[in-house]
Amino acid sequence: MEKRYLFTPGPTPVPPEVLAATAAPIVHHRGPDFRVVYERCLTRLREVFRTENEVLMFVATGTGGFESAVANLTSPGDRALVVSAGSFGERWAAVANAYGADADHLRYAWGETPSPDDVGERAAGAKYVTLVHSETSTGVVADVEALASAAHEAGALVVVDAVSSLGAVPLETDAWKLDVVVTGSQKALMTPPGLALVSASEAAYEAAAAGGAPRFYFDWARTRKAQEALNAAFTPAVSLVAGLDVALGMVLEDGLDAMFERHARLGRACREGAKAMGLELFSPDNDRSAVVTAIRAPAGVDSDELLLLLRDRHGVTLAPGQGELKGKVFRIGHIGWFDVFDIASALSAVELALTELGAPIERGVAAARAFEAYDEFAAA
Amino acid sequence: MEKRYLFTPGPTPVPPEVLAATAAPIVHHRGPDFRVVYERCLTRLREVFRTENEVLMFVATGTGGFESAVANLTSPGDRALVVSAGSFGERWAAVANAYGADADHLRYAWGETPSPDDVGERAAGAKYVTLVHSETSTGVVADVEALASAAHEAGALVVVDAVSSLGAVPLETDAWKLDVVVTGSQKALMTPPGLALVSASEAAYEAAAAGGAPRFYFDWARTRKAQEALNAAFTPAVSLVAGLDVALGMVLEDGLDAMFERHARLGRACREGAKAMGLELFSPDNDRSAVVTAIRAPAGVDSDELLLLLRDRHGVTLAPGQGELKGKVFRIGHIGWFDVFDIASALSAVELALTELGAPIERGVAAARAFEAYDEFAAA
Repeated sequence: MEKRYLFTPGPTPVPPEVLAATAAPIVHHRGPDFRVVYERCLTRLREVFRTENEVLMFVATGTGGFESAVANLTSPGDRALVVSAGSFGERWAAVANAYGADADHLRYAWGETPSPDDVGERAAGAKYVTLVHSETSTGVVADVEALASAAHEAGALVVVDAVSSLGAVPLETDAWKLDVVVTGSQKALMTPPGLALVSASEAAYEAAAAGGAPRFYFDWARTRKAQEALNAAFTPAVSLVAGLDVALGMVLEDGLDAMFERHARLGRACREGAKAMGLELFSPDNDRSAVVTAIRAPAGVDSDELLLLLRDRHGVTLAPGQGELKGKVFRIGHIGWFDVFDIASALSAVELALTELGAPIERGVAAARAFEAYDEFAAA
Repeated sequence: MEKRYLFTPGPTPVPPEVLAATAAPIVHHRGPDFRVVYERCLTRLREVFRTENEVLMFVATGTGGFESAVANLTSPGDRALVVSAGSFGERWAAVANAYGADADHLRYAWGETPSPDDVGERAAGAKYVTLVHSETSTGVVADVEALASAAHEAGALVVVDAVSSLGAVPLETDAWKLDVVVTGSQKALMTPPGLALVSASEAAYEAAAAGGAPRFYFDWARTRKAQEALNAAFTPAVSLVAGLDVALGMVLEDGLDAMFERHARLGRACREGAKAMGLELFSPDNDRSAVVTAIRAPAGVDSDELLLLLRDRHGVTLAPGQGELKGKVFRIGHIGWFDVFDIASALSAVELALTELGAPIERGVAAARAFEAYDEFAAA
């Protein structure tokens, strides 16, 4: 009966009231019991996306949602600019290539922050530009507003991977003129994985109507038409929708601005605690990086070994370094259903396990510094 | 606090122990707690599919799973034979067309049973033939073994929509040489909607490797490789997988043959009860039609009106007629978590509501006849 602690950036912990909603008896997706939930959930999604557009709901992961953008927008040979600085950016380049896009890959080293100037220079002639808002593999949150503006000036549509960012850090779909925004249920929206959520602008729908790749399940027009009639095109994941509705209610009761502030405070608490222990950050030490904190393992410690010890001896799950960062960094997620006590627990667990591994870190200071930094932010 | 009764052919009622499993705290999809469940679930799926092939798991509805077959198998202009005799067959024709297949649509009137001779004649030159095992819109369960054999003789791959049939009526993926079998979590597998399950033969993988349409999320090779390493390509719907694992355990504890017999008995009980009341069946009066029973509304009664009365006054949800059957038939599902008492309740509710609508039906006999027929089958 070892208790488990999940401090990963997705899937993230789900509040008990959301889990309970997902376990209610199944209702039929064309009946009034479901329609009430469905309509409210779709309305709440528009509020969370800060858009007037319909937020399309697919039974899929975030990758499926992102692929819907590529499938609806890519006719063979269309130019696309894919901006990447980590694992997820690389994935979107692979998806664009799979769809026969003439994809120009603006590739930064993992952990770098994409620059609006670079995007502006490279976006000319592109039908669309893909951006990653929060690169979960590195902890970097990009300045999507500035990047999108540069892409728009070059005449391109803007497609944003907001899978780990939406609800955690500010994202203004309409005010920033983001043509496509993709997220998933299992991050800041505090719901089990299984729903991909996609908003699209009129310009994006027009481009999709004029071309795109073969598609049916991920076709935007079909899903939009069905949703507008509250009559889902395909059997929705009714239990996940019921959970998402409850979770969105929680988010909006606090208010999005409170969510953003809480995430910024959690990020600062995590960074300050890690530094107090003597660890070096991999993700940038700024308040925009409020989603996940990537931390370098101390010299002589393999971060994968640290994570196995945490998981198998202590029941604490953190996220590993991916790709070229494997073995070098570990990541603490603080997206969604997280409070500062979770940060303190995660840091204390790291401190304990590093001590067990014989790493020369300072003990007994990380949690206290995390609480302090959390409060400093609020006072500032 | 009106109690609800769900007698639809999907989503179907989910056992409480399965719902409870879906509401357990979220685990990380790359950790050992999930891997144990994932591996057992994949093993159980092979048993339920009666195949040695990997059963690919997608976060999607049944339509997404079916589309994976079309996307992996269709290069532009490839000939495909689409066999349809109802709503779902029509949908697969639309999917094949969306992917640029040269689709020959062998189209029967809704409610007819496809003939192996017709398939044999038309399949020549087709890369694949799509079959619907249980046409949920009409209640017809086709003789997939004979149809598949005819398609194979003509040299075509066989793709089977087993969404509402798998687990309810006999389906032998390997013994019948079915190249692709698609099902969903929300029918006989007694799990909330959200998982599409797809088995593919080596011949199907070879055809996919040699061609197909642009794809990433639904790419079979990527998903197969990831599953074989127990390392899902994309974040799995961990809570639904936990539920499916429990449901499959229940199915296999009873045994598939017991499942098939129970469904056949439920089908017979439903048909006999409906006839005893004086109603006319739309679906065939044979024991293969064990999934859903389509019944004609009596003269002068609109079946949609009947269903609204059942739903809004009595809390009982049945399924309407679709497409050209709208208003003419209603359907009682008996897939998965159903026992004869559910059949009796559904028939009693229909009897009550038809009486309220002034239809001249015989009262007080349907449920008794259903129980009797259920027992007769077992004695036979």
